[in-house]
Amino acid sequence: MTFEQWTRLVLDRVETALEHYLPAATVLPAGLHDAMRYAVLGGGKRVRPLLCHAAGELTSATPEALDAAACALEMIHVYSLVHDDMPCMDDDDLRRGKPTVHVKYDEPTALLVGDALQSQAFITLTSDVLDAPRQAALVRELALASGSIGMAGGQAIDLASVGRALTRAELETMHQLKTGALLRASVRMGAVAGETPSADTLRALDVYAGAVGLAFQVVDDILDVTADSATLGKTAGKDAKDGKPTYVSIIGLDASRALAQQLRSDAHAALEPFGARAQRLAELADLVVNRLS
Amino acid sequence: MTFEQWTRLVLDRVETALEHYLPAATVLPAGLHDAMRYAVLGGGKRVRPLLCHAAGELTSATPEALDAAACALEMIHVYSLVHDDMPCMDDDDLRRGKPTVHVKYDEPTALLVGDALQSQAFITLTSDVLDAPRQAALVRELALASGSIGMAGGQAIDLASVGRALTRAELETMHQLKTGALLRASVRMGAVAGETPSADTLRALDVYAGAVGLAFQVVDDILDVTADSATLGKTAGKDAKDGKPTYVSIIGLDASRALAQQLRSDAHAALEPFGARAQRLAELADLVVNRLS
Repeated sequence: MTFEQWTRLVLDRVETALEHYLPAATVLPAGLHDAMRYAVLGGGKRVRPLLCHAAGELTSATPEALDAAACALEMIHVYSLVHDDMPCMDDDDLRRGKPTVHVKYDEPTALLVGDALQSQAFITLTSDVLDAPRQAALVRELALASGSIGMAGGQAIDLASVGRALTRAELETMHQLKTGALLRASVRMGAVAGETPSADTLRALDVYAGAVGLAFQVVDDILDVTADSATLGKTAGKDAKDGKPTYVSIIGLDASRALAQQLRSDAHAALEPFGARAQRLAELADLVVNRLS
Repeated sequence: MTFEQWTRLVLDRVETALEHYLPAATVLPAGLHDAMRYAVLGGGKRVRPLLCHAAGELTSATPEALDAAACALEMIHVYSLVHDDMPCMDDDDLRRGKPTVHVKYDEPTALLVGDALQSQAFITLTSDVLDAPRQAALVRELALASGSIGMAGGQAIDLASVGRALTRAELETMHQLKTGALLRASVRMGAVAGETPSADTLRALDVYAGAVGLAFQVVDDILDVTADSATLGKTAGKDAKDGKPTYVSIIGLDASRALAQQLRSDAHAALEPFGARAQRLAELADLVVNRLS
């Protein structure tokens, strides 16, 4: 199977699973469920579900277990986008090429959609396609990656940094929490969904995920200045306009491009112990960096 | 031990446990952790932790297991208060006698405090004072009670109801989700934290919790028109001013008082199978209604 075929297969599975794990738009309160489905379905690169499914190949996780983990990850990711786009945060109108939730619906709905999607992620992880020990382990991974020492904490640091000159180290810490923690959880949860991974396996996956997570952010920063809004599906040039520190603003465009390539090499190196079973993870590292071309 | 002594003991335990299960204000990001602790610690009636500890007596749950469940419940409750108080929702300045989080800090911080407290609840439930099956069961109870078919869903219905004339049945459905679901989870989680409760036990507890949850809301509605802000620790007369339907506005003050007493009787009746082990639950039903006097 080519990488493109594998990707298509996983994306189809995950979309079907998201349809299943989100309450139907006919279930009361219908307005809220409609808005939750609008936010989640039919858009997004689904990087976290892809990473989760790819990592599951290392521990022979079942596709059904990986679907549940992947859907939970995507729900958390989307809730963070919905809240980040709100007027009191980034105040953005466009996301995944569509009006943001608070524009399409209203602010209170956006707040509740985000809140309910976070709960839905934990409902999804405790569905019976996973046994209790895996449910518990996956909940802990996801909750830690989402909370104040993960994604939400990174967002707090990001807010505090607007208009300030961050050092590269500070910028890295911010991104490690804001986007890195959930990407790391994506890889770890894929592994945890299968046969219990060894400490060595988890350590190697952390190194891989650290490199991919950073590459993801560097590429995002490059695209923010080189791509247009239609290509991005969100407002281009936004970070520069908002005075947000980025890799491009701190180390420049050329050094940022070189860094992305270096991080891809680092990611590949971390996967060496796994041999061919890590093929999809290696290809995903390429995919993240290849968004540039 | 008198009820007052038991209450004091549980409240002390829970406050200590909350201190423990919330990240210290010295842990980065310190600003977010400071705000999370401000929102949670040193205030509130802790009704959900009390219900949880009381229900745990039916299944011989350990105090440590009940502390974890009680803290998770309180974190979810407080996150909902923080988000409900935000300008795009109820826009309230006063909560538990203190400035609300968005007034004391700012709106983005309030949004992130709520988000991170929800994650922290699930981190707390997966701590090792509980075994994996109980962790998984408690996470599912709490996530279902918090999400779109629970608390967040009730909030969505509440928002859609402002300025509309609700029937008593519609009002009851709204409250069953908005506050009832988490109160029900408080009682169920206390039982689930111990020896696996029978289906009969859970059914009886659901009936009890349904009556107490409704009584809680009826009493809230009565106090909104009869008490002052200092006594309530929040802005009095707010619901009437906002045009929100309440029990008092639909069935009147006298009928609301009679309903509260009837619900107390219903709660007591549901506890009969448990005998003396349900003493604290019975006393808590009295406490909820006695706020009136």
